[in-house]
Order: sequence, then C-alpha cells, then structure tokens
Amino acid sequence: MKIINKAVLPQGFQASGVSAGLKKSGKLDLALFYSETPAKAACRFTMNKLQAAPLKVCKDYLRKANVFQAIIVNSGNANCFTGKPGITDAIAATKYVADYLGLKKETVLVNSTGIIGKRLAIDKIKNAVPGLVQSLSAGGIDEAVKAIMTTDTFAKEVTAQINIAGKIVTICGIAKGAGMISPNMATMLAFVFTDANISQKALNKATDVAVNKSFNCITVDGCMSTNDTLAVLANGAAENNLIDSGKNFNLFLEAFEKVCLELAKMIIRDAEGATKFIEIKVENAKSFNEARVAALAIANSDLFKTAVYGENPNFGRIAAAVGASGIDVKEEDIKIRVSSLKKKQVFVRVGINRGNYSATVYTSDLTPEYIKINAEYN
Amino acid sequence: MKIINKAVLPQGFQASGVSAGLKKSGKLDLALFYSETPAKAACRFTMNKLQAAPLKVCKDYLRKANVFQAIIVNSGNANCFTGKPGITDAIAATKYVADYLGLKKETVLVNSTGIIGKRLAIDKIKNAVPGLVQSLSAGGIDEAVKAIMTTDTFAKEVTAQINIAGKIVTICGIAKGAGMISPNMATMLAFVFTDANISQKALNKATDVAVNKSFNCITVDGCMSTNDTLAVLANGAAENNLIDSGKNFNLFLEAFEKVCLELAKMIIRDAEGATKFIEIKVENAKSFNEARVAALAIANSDLFKTAVYGENPNFGRIAAAVGASGIDVKEEDIKIRVSSLKKKQVFVRVGINRGNYSATVYTSDLTPEYIKINAEYN
Repeated sequence: MKIINKAVLPQGFQASGVSAGLKKSGKLDLALFYSETPAKAACRFTMNKLQAAPLKVCKDYLRKANVFQAIIVNSGNANCFTGKPGITDAIAATKYVADYLGLKKETVLVNSTGIIGKRLAIDKIKNAVPGLVQSLSAGGIDEAVKAIMTTDTFAKEVTAQINIAGKIVTICGIAKGAGMISPNMATMLAFVFTDANISQKALNKATDVAVNKSFNCITVDGCMSTNDTLAVLANGAAENNLIDSGKNFNLFLEAFEKVCLELAKMIIRDAEGATKFIEIKVENAKSFNEARVAALAIANSDLFKTAVYGENPNFGRIAAAVGASGIDVKEEDIKIRVSSLKKKQVFVRVGINRGNYSATVYTSDLTPEYIKINAEYN
Repeated sequence: MKIINKAVLPQGFQASGVSAGLKKSGKLDLALFYSETPAKAACRFTMNKLQAAPLKVCKDYLRKANVFQAIIVNSGNANCFTGKPGITDAIAATKYVADYLGLKKETVLVNSTGIIGKRLAIDKIKNAVPGLVQSLSAGGIDEAVKAIMTTDTFAKEVTAQINIAGKIVTICGIAKGAGMISPNMATMLAFVFTDANISQKALNKATDVAVNKSFNCITVDGCMSTNDTLAVLANGAAENNLIDSGKNFNLFLEAFEKVCLELAKMIIRDAEGATKFIEIKVENAKSFNEARVAALAIANSDLFKTAVYGENPNFGRIAAAVGASGIDVKEEDIKIRVSSLKKKQVFVRVGINRGNYSATVYTSDLTPEYIKINAEYN
C-alpha cells in the first residue's frame, strides 16, 4: 500500500471549488465532485434524530437510484432545522447541478455544513453552479477540499493506492471537521472517491468496518452533529478484477480503513482550540464496543480534558470516567498508564480485566481557546 | 411552610467542624453530625460503578443497622480508588467517632470529598476526633457546613419548617458541590436532618421523589462523581403524629423537596467558573424522564454552554442537542424559546409535542475560568 499525504483523485473523477458568497469572508464555500461514469455509492449519516435537510434528500435519492455521479457541498450554512423550505433548497441544489451536467437529479448527492437554523441562500448557489461545473478538473480537488472547510485550519486529505492483480486502485479521501465532533458519526463531512471495481455488498461492508474504527472513534466535545456524512463513490475506472471477498477485499479494506483513520485523526489534530492530541486505548474489554464506550467516556470527560490541558495528571478522573460509562468494572481491575502530559501527543492506556478486546479513541484537550471559538462564533 | 436561608439544626441534633490538617490551606476539613437519639436514615449514592470507599462502608452499615446517630465527613481527599486500605481507613474513621460517643461503629455513617486516588491521612482524622466530639453543639453546624466544602465559594444551607397538628417539624439541609456535577447523583454531598417522626417507608419515598426532581436535575460538566451522597437522618424529636401517608406526608414532602431543590440550585449558582445560572424546561414530553433526558442533553452540550457564555443565542445548538439525546423527536415539533442571554439568569423552554410531561434542569455556562480551575487544581 502506498500512502500519499494529499488528495489525488482516482481515474474518472473531477472536482471544483468556488466562492458562491455564502461565507461573509468571501472564501471558497461551494464544492462539486463528479464521476465521469456512474458510480456505486455507500453513505453513512449522523445518528442525531435532528437531521439536516440535505441528509433527508440524500436518503431519498439513495432509495431511488443505484448509481451516482456527483456530490454538491456548501459550507457556511448547514441547511438544518430549516423545515420544508430547507428540503426544497437541497433538492434545488441537486437539480441545478444535474441540469448542467445532463444527469437525473437523483444521481446527485448534496450536503451542507455551517450554522444551524438559517435558510440557505439558494440563489447564490444557483448563480455559482455554471462556473462550478465549468471549472471541473482532476486538479480541482485542491479547491474543493478548501471549499468544504468551516473552522478547519488545514485541509484534510489523504490518498492510498494498492495493486490488485496488476491494476492500480486509488482511494482518495477528504474531510472537514474541527468542532461539534462526537461519534455516530463524528461531526464532519468526509468523501472518499475510488476507481475500484467493487461489488455493492463489499463496498457497504468496507464502509461499515472502517467507519466503526475511525470516524466513530473520535470526539472533540461530545456534541453530535446534525449533518455528519461519509459518502463513498466507487466508479470502477481502475478496471481491476471485481473486489467482492477474500484476499482482494482484505487488500481494499486495509487501504480504505487507513484513509478513513487518517482523516479522522486529522480532524482531531485540528480540534478547535486544542493543544494536545490524545490517544486513548482501552484494553481487555469484553467486546470492541465495550472498550470503545469506556474510551469515549474518558475522551468526553471535561475534567480529564482540562487536566491534560493543564498538564496535570489525574488518574482518578480517568477511573471516574470509566466508572461513569456504565460498564460493570471493578475498582481493582482498572489499570491506568499515562504518558508524559508535557508533550503534544498524549497516550492513555486503560486495562479493565474483563476480556480480550480493545479499542482506540482519539480526542483533544479542552482549552480556553475552544470556549472562545464557540462563544464568539458569529 | 417557613423557609430560613441558613442551617438551623432540628431538635436533638448537634454538629461540629474542625481543621484536621487534610487541606494544605489549613481550612476546616472535618465535620461531625450527631443525633442525640437513634434516627432513621435514608441514603442515596452515585450510580458511578467506581464508588469511593466510604460509600461501600455506608452501604454495608445500612444493611447491618436500622438506626444511626452520627455522620463523619472529611474534605480534601475523596478516599476513592484507594483499594482495601481505603475501606480500612473509612471503617477506622467511624470507629474513632463511635468510641468517643459510646456508639456502635455501624451507627456512624462516613463520607469524603476531594481528590481521587490518594490514601487518606487517617492518623490526622484520629487525632482530630476528640476535639471534634467535644465541640459538638447545635450552633456547630456553621463550622460543619464549611468543613465539607472543596472548591465551593459559599456554604450551601437551607431550613424549612412545617406545622404538623400543632408540632413544629424542622428540615435542615446542607450541601457541598461546585464541579464534577452530573446527575445520578450530582457530584455532591448533601445532608438533611429532620426531627420529624416519620415511618421508614415514608422517608424512603420522600427521598426518592425529592432526589429525582432536585439533585438528579442538575449538571455542571456532565462528569459523574464517585462520592455523591445524600444522607437523611430523621430522629423523631418533634414528637409529631407519625408521618406515613396522606395529608401529613404531602406536607412533609413539599418541605423536603423544597430543601433539596434549594440545595441543588445553590450548587449550580456556585458552579466552577460559571457566569450564568441556566434553567432549562422541556415541555410536552411523553414522560418526566423523557423531558429530563432532553433537558440534560441541552444542559450537557459544551456548544450550548459556550454559546450562553458568549451571550450568543444559537437555537440550532439547542435543537441539535435534543436530537442527539436519543428521543424520537421530529424537527417540526421542536419549539424553542430563550430569554435574553445578557442577564445572569437564563431561561430556556423547549416544547417537543409528544405528551403532557415536563422537567426542569439547572446548569451553568462553560467558561475559560472552569478550565483554569480544573487544569490547575493542585
């Protein structure tokens, strides 16, 4: 497996990013991703009961269509808690793109990120679509990845390449996210494009496995977003032997997991106001899920996160968080090891002596700067 | 019902507070509460699976004895995550008190609050017990309430008096708590003393009802403590007709609830670093519990709490928190009203159009000062 620390679009994909005027700053805020041929898709959405309008539209399209060719994404406004007008706006965005590209609107996915509860300026998107379509290119991914950013301070992008029986398969992932990050999904948008020739079943399975160990294992503030989306497009342009199961699937899965995990970790590295990157591994649990629940309980403890910020080790706060997680753990079974808090990267290992499973969760410290960013956000 | 905004011990109770040297500052850190006659007790403890040693000892004593006469409480050290030596220390503390007062040790309850994971300096407690017992008096409650404080900036105390068929019944409550506050129970110690003549069954019922609406409806940081305890002693010295059910029970319950709720609200008013007192009422829920779950989801959202600190209203963050709470709520059914964030007291009302129940939860904003306190705590 070859890893490239930037976005390199696979064969048959193009992208673009423009400023539609949704962000007051005038920065890039509208992105388009396009597959020249119909692609299979796998999407995973937030578990929040309040779901943004574009998610509802995507779910509807995913029921109606089997293949997809484009994704339009805006930043600056989440189009969430916007009622029926929000749905109308999200559908309109897909229709503008579909009309310009000669597609059915149901093959165009849509997402939004930004402030919740304000109507989208859909006319600005309408006016920007022609330029967005005209500037589509393989290199346009550099603008597209910037156009989906909100409070992010750097672009999150990674590419993996594998060789399947002589054919190079590329998996390119990009993401946005820095705050309102909590599992199921994390508060983030992530898009993965691959030219792999892969069965729908295998694509779904790879997505479930990878999400569980990556985007569902990160937390910044425990706040579950309304817009979280991972969308994966696979267009088969690599012309490899069909990936379905066995060795080829495992090869693909390994690379796909790597892309998702690297994106997830980048989100934590960019966590709002953070000064520390914290890796928490809970070991000897009865199941992966139990280990993750315990690790997330530590990761979401404001007391633990402030102790790390203060470089003030406190095993008691870690033990208390594990105890509060609901897992039936005994005091004498809890073993805690913590690396030096003076460093930028902090490792926490917690054994709970209940079984053979472990899980690793990534988080950041809680700082006065996080509060400043979220108290003065507009 | 008459409310007195300070602790007035009921008939037959005495208290004292001294400095045993557990706090480096030399402030009061050891309290004793004493009933001259055997009293019925009702205790409720944290739901954290990691429970401090004194809680384990109390639970054991509550199984062994029917009546109780004293409670010894230290601050400066939580005696938690201290293994078997911690249990030995907690038992020793009850024995020192029992020996000086001529009681069985099983009639002496014990609790601790402070840092987790460090062994208690039990010799300091042993040395302080004689002075502690000698200074017992009705007025000693003023020192006792100070001796249970940790990061608290003011003493939390309230007294209610009711008239039951010509007899004055007094209910006196005190509490400590300012951080690590989250329901089941809130992170706090609270003690309620009453001279009511009341059946064990009625005392238990009143305790359950009152806790549910008071200490289980507050949160500062969503961190569930290992030491949370409410202990209620009822010694019957008021010689009123036995309170068991009906009108007299309702009279007692109303006053008892008032005492618990006032203590709970005082804890929020003293929340670490807080600049705002926030009251969140969720209405039109299917049950009280559902309303409370939704209200607590808002109250525990760092994004909501920082928005209030920034006086920056954000309905979207409130709606997102309700959606993340797991309640099956529809976007179009969420109605949100928020009072001016410029004021010190903020009211949030959220309707969810699912039924006829409501719950009110109390919390504080999340501020840079909270982080400072918890990053630099030792």
